[in-house]
Amino acid sequence: MSEHEIIAITQTEDPQITKDELNSSIDDAIESGNDVLAKKILTNIHYADLADYISFASKDQRKKVLALLKDKIDPEILLEFEEEVVKSLIEIWGVKKTTSLINKLDVDEAVDFLSDLDEEYRNNILDDMPVKRRRLIRQGLSYPANSAGILMHSNYVSVRDTKKVGEVLDYLEGNTSLPEDYDELYIVDAKNRPVGNVQLSKLLQSKKSDKISKVMNKDIQAVDVLLDQEEVSYIFKHYDLGSVAVVNKFYKMIGVIDIDQIIDVIEEEAEEDLMRMGGIGNSDIYSAYFKTAIQRFPWLFVNLVMACVTSLIIAQFEDEIQKIVVLAAIMPIVASMGGNAGTQTVTVAVRAIANKDITSSNVWRVVTKEIVACALNGLLLGMIGAFILLVLYQNINLSSIFALAVVINFTLAGLSGAMIPIMLDRFGFDPAISSSVFLTFLTDFLGFFIFLSLASIFLLKA
Amino acid sequence: MSEHEIIAITQTEDPQITKDELNSSIDDAIESGNDVLAKKILTNIHYADLADYISFASKDQRKKVLALLKDKIDPEILLEFEEEVVKSLIEIWGVKKTTSLINKLDVDEAVDFLSDLDEEYRNNILDDMPVKRRRLIRQGLSYPANSAGILMHSNYVSVRDTKKVGEVLDYLEGNTSLPEDYDELYIVDAKNRPVGNVQLSKLLQSKKSDKISKVMNKDIQAVDVLLDQEEVSYIFKHYDLGSVAVVNKFYKMIGVIDIDQIIDVIEEEAEEDLMRMGGIGNSDIYSAYFKTAIQRFPWLFVNLVMACVTSLIIAQFEDEIQKIVVLAAIMPIVASMGGNAGTQTVTVAVRAIANKDITSSNVWRVVTKEIVACALNGLLLGMIGAFILLVLYQNINLSSIFALAVVINFTLAGLSGAMIPIMLDRFGFDPAISSSVFLTFLTDFLGFFIFLSLASIFLLKA
Repeated sequence: MSEHEIIAITQTEDPQITKDELNSSIDDAIESGNDVLAKKILTNIHYADLADYISFASKDQRKKVLALLKDKIDPEILLEFEEEVVKSLIEIWGVKKTTSLINKLDVDEAVDFLSDLDEEYRNNILDDMPVKRRRLIRQGLSYPANSAGILMHSNYVSVRDTKKVGEVLDYLEGNTSLPEDYDELYIVDAKNRPVGNVQLSKLLQSKKSDKISKVMNKDIQAVDVLLDQEEVSYIFKHYDLGSVAVVNKFYKMIGVIDIDQIIDVIEEEAEEDLMRMGGIGNSDIYSAYFKTAIQRFPWLFVNLVMACVTSLIIAQFEDEIQKIVVLAAIMPIVASMGGNAGTQTVTVAVRAIANKDITSSNVWRVVTKEIVACALNGLLLGMIGAFILLVLYQNINLSSIFALAVVINFTLAGLSGAMIPIMLDRFGFDPAISSSVFLTFLTDFLGFFIFLSLASIFLLKA
Repeated sequence: MSEHEIIAITQTEDPQITKDELNSSIDDAIESGNDVLAKKILTNIHYADLADYISFASKDQRKKVLALLKDKIDPEILLEFEEEVVKSLIEIWGVKKTTSLINKLDVDEAVDFLSDLDEEYRNNILDDMPVKRRRLIRQGLSYPANSAGILMHSNYVSVRDTKKVGEVLDYLEGNTSLPEDYDELYIVDAKNRPVGNVQLSKLLQSKKSDKISKVMNKDIQAVDVLLDQEEVSYIFKHYDLGSVAVVNKFYKMIGVIDIDQIIDVIEEEAEEDLMRMGGIGNSDIYSAYFKTAIQRFPWLFVNLVMACVTSLIIAQFEDEIQKIVVLAAIMPIVASMGGNAGTQTVTVAVRAIANKDITSSNVWRVVTKEIVACALNGLLLGMIGAFILLVLYQNINLSSIFALAVVINFTLAGLSGAMIPIMLDRFGFDPAISSSVFLTFLTDFLGFFIFLSLASIFLLKA
């Protein structure tokens, strides 16, 4: 092979740059009024890239792009958008055009899309559909939000356990009435209960005279149609599965969930945890200014109220602070460090709960470990901090009290950082959303209280 | 179907409970010395459940379990453990026994396993392997950590683009020398460059006389063997792929990465982001007390130093605080609220960067939005807080200054909360790990400084 034939591939470069360049070239073509060029780019890029462009475009740009594309739009693009963007697109297209796009999706894709939409929009679209399709979609939508029923599809191929490999292959070959993309067959018994599965590659390799029940993989997982998506994704991850059978309450097979749908769930759940830890409901990068502010308000308000309570504690030590003003300069260090130590513990505990790593048999070991690890760091950092403060303020008593307060606050931060998420989870609350609120309140409150109390006892009585 | 035939499935119950019960039953069997029962349970559960039990067991329990299992252990269990647990198992088994287990894994699984291990352990194990296998594994390990080369496997099936569907099917049927589990064929040209792929289900449905290049999917993605796993997983998520071809620098096909390996990468990257935002290097739930403390020390130390700098600013306002001691009680509210508002913005920005949602064409829109959203909440919460403080401390001037300080600090928190992660990312640092350190320092520092300065200007001069 000569050097001239080497082909460069774009994926080795930073996709960020490619995306930037792509978006700029669309912007340029639209702004310069070169509709032919703009249309050429828009119809030739992958729908996922088009979705990204539309998501971040202004309303005018969106109108222009949709007008240029007309009907040359892959319906699967609908599944790429966040709720805010979808609403804006429905406004531009109108219900009729939106419905005709949705009608090009598979039933399970349409269910997936409509399940995230507001009731009002959803009903308008459903009313515009043919009766038979509407009934199928309504049935899909009847499962609870975020349940296996919403995730599953019914485009799977199942065969009876009594068939022979050769019979099954004859049935599959050239049969264009079957779904185009499936990787395995599900094997069911006479009552349509899943008893195993066979990957197509395995089927092709097996002897045609063998019974399918002999070559199938019996170690399959079936999930109830009502199971929450977080549990479904846990089963996928834990058992390294490619797909699961979905069954109704009679254990009859009614659908399949594939791993590619689980990727979205895992992303969603991980993002949710991260956002909640940061004090935000949902990813709100697409929301308008005012809506974003409102969404973020509640946790800031709770924080304000709790900070006011903390302020009352500090006010109790007015006399002490007036006598030794430097106390006011040092006390935030104790509170801030305790908050950080506690946040580390909360993060570990929240993640461990999400991974189901905390069980009743190891819960005390985990809590003890967090307390000891925090106390050790409290001891170390208390001493280092005491030394820094000795240099800054030349007061050995103040430094000693600081070190003692840090050790106590760290130990309590370890205890509460581990216990708060565990207790919240046990009582059915989401540990990610509420743990940091309580924790920072506790470490602030305790940090100020412990430090000022110690100062009151040891510095002012002396 | 009669009611009596209804079969309950365990997945509808909380798997947490099942896991708890399972672990307790193993504990009970081992503690009561009922080796027959313990062995029966241990050999009958899924290797993923066994891995969970071993991960949280004490060293003595691990020894006992491994002694009971002897050789009845699925080698795939090795891929389930965190590094700390693997080291402990190697100590119990010894190198010889560990190597014999690893030799039962596929080459790419062994590469995956060994790539996470310390050099010393890795070399001891490799030295104990047959020469040919060692060479293959060393070749796999020669790719950079976290690259496509480490993720890929070479158990794929590729065929020339000139073949006919019927020829390919004849080649596949009954051919037990091929891998047992593959879902699609990769189609390559005369120079072994990937040009498309065909799912087996599609192949079975196609006309046997068709050329494979006619039925194949041409819209495939190929990634360079050196590409980082984070970029690989982005391509999978962005284009909803089931697999990608891995190519060398001459664009020759050398491997395939499947979606099930990407699930682990997505989990790993999401966990990394969450942990780093919480100020922790890695999930350390399996580490020993002292090691955990050491791992968490650096970010706490940085926080201590920055808090001391903040303390010096407060000390500059000694006179003001002495005159109006309640300033010391109110100033932490301003700092704490600014920190929370900034954390919300940092969280959104870090997530948006990870999702490649921030491009050069929208970066200013994102930053502006964060500033406006924060300023709006600052205005609202500043007024609410001012009212609460008016009730508590009956000082209208103090309340007004508080409100003004909150608005300014929130606006700056929005600006820096968005800019810090963006700048860190642009200069090649991980925005997740360092953003919160800088942000909380800034919001504390600015919170105290703005509030005390305003008090000094408006309260004491008046």
